[in-house]
Amino acid sequence: MHQMVTELFPICRSITGDGVRATLKTIQSSVPIQIFEVPSGTKAFDWEVPREWNIRDAYILDGDGKRVVDWKSNNLHVVSYSVPVDRWIDLAELQQHLYSLEQQPDAIPYVTSYYKERWGFCLRHVDRLKLKEGIYRAVIDSSLGNGSLTYGEMVLPGTTKDEIFLSTYVCHPSMANNELSGPVVTVELAKWLASQPRRYTYRIVFIPETIGSLVYLSRHLNHLKKNVVAGFVITCVGDDRTYSFLPSRKGNTLADRAALNILGANYPHFDKYSFMDRGSDERQYCSPGVDLPMVSIMRSKYGTYPEYHTSLDNLSLVTPDGLAGAFTVLCDCLELLEHNRILQCTCLGEPQLGRRGLYPTVQRGPTPREATDMLNLLAYADGENDLIEISKIIQVPCSRLYATVDKLISVGLLKEIDVKLNKKTEVSVSGN
Amino acid sequence: MHQMVTELFPICRSITGDGVRATLKTIQSSVPIQIFEVPSGTKAFDWEVPREWNIRDAYILDGDGKRVVDWKSNNLHVVSYSVPVDRWIDLAELQQHLYSLEQQPDAIPYVTSYYKERWGFCLRHVDRLKLKEGIYRAVIDSSLGNGSLTYGEMVLPGTTKDEIFLSTYVCHPSMANNELSGPVVTVELAKWLASQPRRYTYRIVFIPETIGSLVYLSRHLNHLKKNVVAGFVITCVGDDRTYSFLPSRKGNTLADRAALNILGANYPHFDKYSFMDRGSDERQYCSPGVDLPMVSIMRSKYGTYPEYHTSLDNLSLVTPDGLAGAFTVLCDCLELLEHNRILQCTCLGEPQLGRRGLYPTVQRGPTPREATDMLNLLAYADGENDLIEISKIIQVPCSRLYATVDKLISVGLLKEIDVKLNKKTEVSVSGN
Amino acid sequence: MHQMVTELFPICRSITGDGVRATLKTIQSSVPIQIFEVPSGTKAFDWEVPREWNIRDAYILDGDGKRVVDWKSNNLHVVSYSVPVDRWIDLAELQQHLYSLEQQPDAIPYVTSYYKERWGFCLRHVDRLKLKEGIYRAVIDSSLGNGSLTYGEMVLPGTTKDEIFLSTYVCHPSMANNELSGPVVTVELAKWLASQPRRYTYRIVFIPETIGSLVYLSRHLNHLKKNVVAGFVITCVGDDRTYSFLPSRKGNTLADRAALNILGANYPHFDKYSFMDRGSDERQYCSPGVDLPMVSIMRSKYGTYPEYHTSLDNLSLVTPDGLAGAFTVLCDCLELLEHNRILQCTCLGEPQLGRRGLYPTVQRGPTPREATDMLNLLAYADGENDLIEISKIIQVPCSRLYATVDKLISVGLLKEIDVKLNKKTEVSVSGN
Repeated sequence: MHQMVTELFPICRSITGDGVRATLKTIQSSVPIQIFEVPSGTKAFDWEVPREWNIRDAYILDGDGKRVVDWKSNNLHVVSYSVPVDRWIDLAELQQHLYSLEQQPDAIPYVTSYYKERWGFCLRHVDRLKLKEGIYRAVIDSSLGNGSLTYGEMVLPGTTKDEIFLSTYVCHPSMANNELSGPVVTVELAKWLASQPRRYTYRIVFIPETIGSLVYLSRHLNHLKKNVVAGFVITCVGDDRTYSFLPSRKGNTLADRAALNILGANYPHFDKYSFMDRGSDERQYCSPGVDLPMVSIMRSKYGTYPEYHTSLDNLSLVTPDGLAGAFTVLCDCLELLEHNRILQCTCLGEPQLGRRGLYPTVQRGPTPREATDMLNLLAYADGENDLIEISKIIQVPCSRLYATVDKLISVGLLKEIDVKLNKKTEVSVSGN
Repeated sequence: MHQMVTELFPICRSITGDGVRATLKTIQSSVPIQIFEVPSGTKAFDWEVPREWNIRDAYILDGDGKRVVDWKSNNLHVVSYSVPVDRWIDLAELQQHLYSLEQQPDAIPYVTSYYKERWGFCLRHVDRLKLKEGIYRAVIDSSLGNGSLTYGEMVLPGTTKDEIFLSTYVCHPSMANNELSGPVVTVELAKWLASQPRRYTYRIVFIPETIGSLVYLSRHLNHLKKNVVAGFVITCVGDDRTYSFLPSRKGNTLADRAALNILGANYPHFDKYSFMDRGSDERQYCSPGVDLPMVSIMRSKYGTYPEYHTSLDNLSLVTPDGLAGAFTVLCDCLELLEHNRILQCTCLGEPQLGRRGLYPTVQRGPTPREATDMLNLLAYADGENDLIEISKIIQVPCSRLYATVDKLISVGLLKEIDVKLNKKTEVSVSGN
Repeated sequence: MHQMVTELFPICRSITGDGVRATLKTIQSSVPIQIFEVPSGTKAFDWEVPREWNIRDAYILDGDGKRVVDWKSNNLHVVSYSVPVDRWIDLAELQQHLYSLEQQPDAIPYVTSYYKERWGFCLRHVDRLKLKEGIYRAVIDSSLGNGSLTYGEMVLPGTTKDEIFLSTYVCHPSMANNELSGPVVTVELAKWLASQPRRYTYRIVFIPETIGSLVYLSRHLNHLKKNVVAGFVITCVGDDRTYSFLPSRKGNTLADRAALNILGANYPHFDKYSFMDRGSDERQYCSPGVDLPMVSIMRSKYGTYPEYHTSLDNLSLVTPDGLAGAFTVLCDCLELLEHNRILQCTCLGEPQLGRRGLYPTVQRGPTPREATDMLNLLAYADGENDLIEISKIIQVPCSRLYATVDKLISVGLLKEIDVKLNKKTEVSVSGN
């Protein structure tokens, strides 16, 4: 995975343009996504697809013709969506268009201006301080015009039409944790899912953040509301410092329950955020009236680590261990969702496990753990609790119960009842 | 307000009689209340209006004809509702009719005997100890006879028939916090409300405690149950030591929610009591089957401060600051109730605040507080939460959200849904 | 009670056989139980009644013909349900059939093998270590054959058909707390109940653990589900070290609420277990689909005290005080259930207690406790809360409220509404 991050890192992405396309093409060489183009001006609820932005070069020359800022050395140097410019101006005017971080003088900040025409350069504060009085030539060779927004989608069918929805974004320029870790871990999940038997259908999208999820929602809202049982916004899954959880707006969906079960069992010290701390596409997916059951499991959450939205969020911040850890926890969640059913004991009273070889026939000393698990699981398999709930009540990690459930089903003592989707009403897509 | 307390202080009030009438007349000179007379013997649920009590003079003479206790110096000196007496008795017999506080030797206690014929004098314990063996003449020039119970009422119509109910009491003799602060703050609220646009209709009553609220309830029960959305018993709102809250019996009415929101935001160290600590007319208003949504916001609660029900509850205990503080917090509650609506975002997904000038167009650094407030408010404006609930979830004081709500409504991103009264069934008034 | 424990102690009980019959006969001499025989092979849900086991003698002879283990000295020496044996074997082979406790070298363990053919001896570890190389004769003069499972039942009719169910077990050999304390305390409860007026019908069973409760359930399931409002599994009620509580599976039944109310008021430091700690017949009574409202109140819970399931659980562990304490707390629970009703105040507003002599007629100083209890009780007697709930809200032990309730009913201020059984659906008994 780290290799793919490295490969995608240099591309200058934004919410539209060739950088997104190049990224999606690279992803397409790993997993069979379909690529969609949505024309500028297309409405998406309260928003519309902006003009397409592309950039070829950008720099600032000083009076001696020396490049004091050069986009080719780091594509964060240009404010994303900058309009084209080529002007000689004095330092005072140039300063109006410069962005740097006094507190992190060695970091280039990441700045965007998607919906207001601007141009600007971002640079290390140490370099900004070196600029002398004089005239400078600011050049941004960009274009803003009718074009399209580009996104990728793949659907892995399962044995049911109920869906699990994975969403990640491909609109950030050269930053690694936020955000190449998301697409790369999602690609790996897609490959793994393709190799597995699947009860659920998996819908996986690679989109630009915000406008991309709004566009996707506005095209698929009723389908998603009808079919999605759980989903994950996959972002900031690359460093190896912590695990983080951001709940859905309602906080008690199947996605919340699965994620909390896995994180609680395996990473009990994870950082638990509130929906008030949201900052990615759950803002759209969990908005009132949309309310998809989606959460985020992250490593270090956006906005909480010092390198966030700067050039320091680079290939050394994201590590193979960090990526692998996030991949594992997401796999665990999906595996849990695949196993999760409402369970019901098939007989009244406790079943006689002993005659089936599932319980010691001599009664003395402490009961073996699996026999205890079995009896506890059966005691709560009342046709109302699902596996996640039972795991919570009997305080046994779900993963330890998969084999137990299978054994009890095979001897006819347990039956599974599908977790039905809550009845959902159709929503008319307004704003379109 | 303190001036009005001073003006009303000398009047000898009880649950009936000319003291109440004089008090209501004074109030009527400030706000247009209507005064009602309810005849002795009128049934009110399990109770009936007692005979009317009036008093002209009362004193104890010693053997030398010296007034050792004189009602004219302080009307607490007579047990309220004392039957008339004029007898020479020896000290031993007199002692049977004396009330004083050993623990507060300099305070005259406040004692009543409304429903059992008695006569008695209250005095400072230090003065009681000075009484020498000998004979004394006890004189109470009072009358108990058919008459009426007197109360005042005003109704300020709003744009809806839903009502907010304010109730205070006018039956205590010369004590300041408990109870002249209540009527005086209520008069001030009535004047303020009269000057404001009003969604709600305001029903404001000045009644004798207990028997007055029972009488009022028995006459208006179905109307009150059908129309009152929130109410406040206004008592002990005059000192400047603390703020106190006494919930409704059910604890989760609109009145509870509004009061807790305002107190929590502005006076986080307020004293929170339980309904078990009740002691005023919420005993009637929140009784089973009545269950009006009424709470008390107080300064130092009755029964909790040392001067309570003694002559020490005087004009120096109640302060202009104390009265003003209570007035402010009650205004804040009423303002909140006027603003409170169920809120609903008018579009799916997050609205694009930037193009409306409500959000920064360059994305860098922390988001301004009002923009964050807006997004959080919109995220929970799901057509189920009202403003109070949203304030609680997003942890922003309601008062900071009024302008934000207005702004979002004016740009068409938010709509208000009236908080409907819970369907309430008619109750047949029993006991009458 | 301790005398009856002493009388029953020497009998060699198991889940079937003459030991159970002898025990039930002794019980029958105290209380009029009816004794039932259920033939071997009878199905009970997932189980069936095993063959009947009886034993006449058992011992191990060493090479010198000396009894090194003798069942006649302590009937724990034989693994319960041991098949007959009479063989000369060497020590190595004998060791395969020996059970002792290395950690408790002076205790004979209690071992059973009901459902798998085995034979074995239990002995003190110190004695096991003394066994020398050589040959031994192992003799168990037992029989396993068609017969029956025996249990006792009595039903004490009340004025209603709603039932309280008491279940205890009579299948343990010579151990005192677990389990002779249960049957003996239950006998005492039955005698006390027979002497009392009863609203509820009492169903009391003396059964073998597990298979006995399964048999009983399979014969009476629909009746029990329809009629039982609360029940207690009575076990481990003989020592004097602590009080313990084990909830029902759902944790909020009437039995749970009554037990927690009594224990909380009288023994606030009781040990509160979870249903995960279950180990007796609540495993059957609370199983999914059965879900009787049953809990256990114990002294030291099975599995938690060092003498458990060994010869150290003897007549000195169980004390008269221990038995009496358990008897008292169970009586308190039954008394509470008999008193428990939904309560409703008969008037609106507070009733006028004063004119009924229930409240002081002079208003000064703190209100007497009973008057406060009355007003608080009336304030929550809203036709929804039962006495247990009111006790919890107003924080007054139920027992202090019985007389108050009676007084208020007698003056017509309170009425009782029967606690209705939750509507229960019939369950078809599967596995039969």
